[in-house]
Amino acid sequence: MSTEQRRILVIGIGAGDPDHLTLGAVKAMRRADVFFIVGKGPDKASLTDLRHRMVEEHAEGPYRVVEVEDPSRERRSMDRGEYTMAVQDWRDRRGEMFERLMREEMTEGETGAFLVWGDPSLYDSTLGILADIEARGSIRPHVEVVPGITSVSTLAARHRIPLNQVGRPVHITPARRLSDVAQNDDGDIVVMLDAHESFTQVDGDDVWIYWGAYLGTPDELLVAGPVREVSEQIRQVRAEARERHGWIMDTYLLRNVGTSQPDPTG
Amino acid sequence: MSTEQRRILVIGIGAGDPDHLTLGAVKAMRRADVFFIVGKGPDKASLTDLRHRMVEEHAEGPYRVVEVEDPSRERRSMDRGEYTMAVQDWRDRRGEMFERLMREEMTEGETGAFLVWGDPSLYDSTLGILADIEARGSIRPHVEVVPGITSVSTLAARHRIPLNQVGRPVHITPARRLSDVAQNDDGDIVVMLDAHESFTQVDGDDVWIYWGAYLGTPDELLVAGPVREVSEQIRQVRAEARERHGWIMDTYLLRNVGTSQPDPTG
Repeated sequence: MSTEQRRILVIGIGAGDPDHLTLGAVKAMRRADVFFIVGKGPDKASLTDLRHRMVEEHAEGPYRVVEVEDPSRERRSMDRGEYTMAVQDWRDRRGEMFERLMREEMTEGETGAFLVWGDPSLYDSTLGILADIEARGSIRPHVEVVPGITSVSTLAARHRIPLNQVGRPVHITPARRLSDVAQNDDGDIVVMLDAHESFTQVDGDDVWIYWGAYLGTPDELLVAGPVREVSEQIRQVRAEARERHGWIMDTYLLRNVGTSQPDPTG
Repeated sequence: MSTEQRRILVIGIGAGDPDHLTLGAVKAMRRADVFFIVGKGPDKASLTDLRHRMVEEHAEGPYRVVEVEDPSRERRSMDRGEYTMAVQDWRDRRGEMFERLMREEMTEGETGAFLVWGDPSLYDSTLGILADIEARGSIRPHVEVVPGITSVSTLAARHRIPLNQVGRPVHITPARRLSDVAQNDDGDIVVMLDAHESFTQVDGDDVWIYWGAYLGTPDELLVAGPVREVSEQIRQVRAEARERHGWIMDTYLLRNVGTSQPDPTG
């Protein structure tokens, strides 16, 4: 069996604002022959729509759009080992789908593009899956990555704050690992993928939260303040928004302001 | 004394590639009346030149460019307390300069813009300084932040790797805090501002380094491999490049691959 080559662009499209697209992302989109848009089900249709609109606005023909449904993923509460296995299983199925797309929906001379929410380097599986496909060896993707604006940068921009305090680290963590990371040091903590409102468990008079949902979109929501004072407000805002939209995507920064300015937003 | 208002755009311009500019950054530049470009001395003239070229390409007239020299900053080896004080002193002098620029180089109805390398939220002092100015109260900056592509995202994009392993944290740290952060957990570590080649002190057979310098520019350099095997190569590449350019700006990811794939690049 010979190895077929495929030119693949993995393009970060930013955190929800069409203006987050970089000039480089626009140029890359103009080079693509096939766009692969991976849908997340009807709940998040607005995320898929945004990618369609970006393609319509920036791609230069002739081009094709292939939309597929993401494999379903188990979402019940799991321990770390189960979680890793569930993610691996989902990634394997996603990998089979990507391999099929590259084999059946494009030819060797063409360029395919995956449009990735935020930045392809942060809590996105596309690059890992393409590496798995390359390791299996029947298709060899030549991958070019176009970096994108992260939801983390967007959160900080909208709150007009730096992520780090002077000379200190910043930790970015999935919510399920927050308790480990919170014990570490005096660095600030950005929490992603928090399905269980872990911020309500955060302790300490000196901890501020800078929270944001639907960042970069017209539905954007922002709340900031001492976590003990505003966590109930965030819970309510979050519940109402989730009810209204059918889904929520949020992230937040936890900052210990005890040894710095009392209010970093000035 | 009345408080004067100033509209200020803090625009992330990405990590060195003119194509890192977002569509939003271009639109923001078109709205600016005055651009403040803070030079870093003759060593890093190419960084200043890039900003001038971006303004020339994207700003829409009439506009003015005000270039100033960054206050000098003590760079000798210091303990953590001394370091924080030296940074604070430098920030104070930078703050006086920014306040003077806003007072003397623009009027209340105008819009000023600071063009910030990378993203304004990550290891950049502009937002903190503007918050200090607002706290002093004689000028009130109305700040709007345009997020930018970070050198961290660029490093990952150029190596075509994710920053995080599945379900794990990512830590971003100044090199002087690397030893604290490295003890924390199984997360990956991005090291910034490493003047002392701290990667040569990193231990462990399973640790890979993904290193990059002058990211996003035509002078970009990349090295990846097990840190024990490639750290001497990075030292040499680094020394030669520093000699040739007169300065270096580099960053790297440290990844413990012991419990994951042996080669995450595939």
